[in-house]
Amino acid sequence: MQSVHFTAETSSNGVVERDFTVGEIPGTLWSPATANATGSSGSRFDRAPLVLMGHGGGTHKKWPAMTGRARLLVTGCGFHVACIDAPGHGDRPRTAHDEQEIAALYRAREAGEPEGPIVVRYNAHLAERAVPEWQATLDALQELPEIGAGGPVGYFGLNMATAIGVPLTAVEPRITAAVFGLHWPDALAETAKRITVPVEFMLQWDDEHIPRASGLALFDAFASKEKTLHANTGRHKELPRFEADGAVRFFARHLGRAVTASA
Amino acid sequence: MQSVHFTAETSSNGVVERDFTVGEIPGTLWSPATANATGSSGSRFDRAPLVLMGHGGGTHKKWPAMTGRARLLVTGCGFHVACIDAPGHGDRPRTAHDEQEIAALYRAREAGEPEGPIVVRYNAHLAERAVPEWQATLDALQELPEIGAGGPVGYFGLNMATAIGVPLTAVEPRITAAVFGLHWPDALAETAKRITVPVEFMLQWDDEHIPRASGLALFDAFASKEKTLHANTGRHKELPRFEADGAVRFFARHLGRAVTASA
Repeated sequence: MQSVHFTAETSSNGVVERDFTVGEIPGTLWSPATANATGSSGSRFDRAPLVLMGHGGGTHKKWPAMTGRARLLVTGCGFHVACIDAPGHGDRPRTAHDEQEIAALYRAREAGEPEGPIVVRYNAHLAERAVPEWQATLDALQELPEIGAGGPVGYFGLNMATAIGVPLTAVEPRITAAVFGLHWPDALAETAKRITVPVEFMLQWDDEHIPRASGLALFDAFASKEKTLHANTGRHKELPRFEADGAVRFFARHLGRAVTASA
Repeated sequence: MQSVHFTAETSSNGVVERDFTVGEIPGTLWSPATANATGSSGSRFDRAPLVLMGHGGGTHKKWPAMTGRARLLVTGCGFHVACIDAPGHGDRPRTAHDEQEIAALYRAREAGEPEGPIVVRYNAHLAERAVPEWQATLDALQELPEIGAGGPVGYFGLNMATAIGVPLTAVEPRITAAVFGLHWPDALAETAKRITVPVEFMLQWDDEHIPRASGLALFDAFASKEKTLHANTGRHKELPRFEADGAVRFFARHLGRAVTASA
């Protein structure tokens, strides 16, 4: 098993941000700064639930939406939050196949052709590479005293991070609650039928890429007894900011934390 | 114009509950207890936004769901919250027509026949009686110094209270944000197309009375640039409790209040 190797640390406004690697995988772990030099876990951080956070296609682990959501989860609930660069993203090299698919996506976009078929097939490919990486990362993170094995784990990922998170959650019993959304059902609906943990699902009512019925079909596919759809007016990239607050409250309910006023 | 006539007052855990009448209409007004004998408004209450709250069919202004939501809105945001008994409900007399429709509903339920057609037509009838009553009540409430004219007003009503609230909001420019849900589109969709204020809409994904496509069609009908659908697994009466918290946060955003940790 590979361990977490910390490479950099910064701190601001109560949030400690630590870059790490697990083998070849680069990631970032955000944690609440604790008042005491030694927290309840025996490390300088208190033990708390962990939220795994995936980034969208074409972005990376420290994209503003990622750091913003991480801050909300840390300051609102005291969670630890981890994000890793997906294959071919951020600090990671692209394969020839990555380059081909990205070029195909740009060509379609340029030509005004549907992006969906390319995104669906490329994301499914990335998910095959990313799921074992997430599992190795979770193994390593759970070795840290402030996280530990057996504690609650959530997953929060939209767009490409839903394409990765659905198969991850389906095979990973340590994940006990998940926020997904903004994806097509084509490669995911059958896998979603195996997911039974509580799910919050986000959909844009006027998405120019994902037909409304397709988004609703993916939400419908989850076998979860408790699932909530949040659909908002607006196009694909217009997800309202307040949905991040809603996700914080979802994880607070399911990972067992109170929300403070700041969330 | 008729005035608010207060008839009873109780107080518990920071919430003052005052029963009132406006003409023949009985209502309840919940307000935050203020520390000072004289609030900022010149009355013993502070001035704050008002949320009008409608109750569902067969219940009344002090049904537990109403008092629970009122408490969340008052303690969470410092709002004033008013609910009135709908025609034929609570402390109000039933007409012969009310009795006929209620009997028809019970017969359908007993026979296992669809309730929808009866509920839709009876609620549309009740809305015709209720809309002018709400307007008279709002006129009177805005004469109170702690509410005042020109302040933000929200409307929160599901089931029958959506059948009343949609036509009310469509004709009442003083209402600037509304929470609706759990109703058929038949008598409401055309009216909903005239509503442009922010709307949060609740729908039960497994509603045994309202077909999923019907609920989605009513949500779709609102012309609001900003609208959010919250759909949850479960049957008609299984709306999760946490949706009341979500409604508090919706009104906090749109009526201009911060949410405290208790909400």
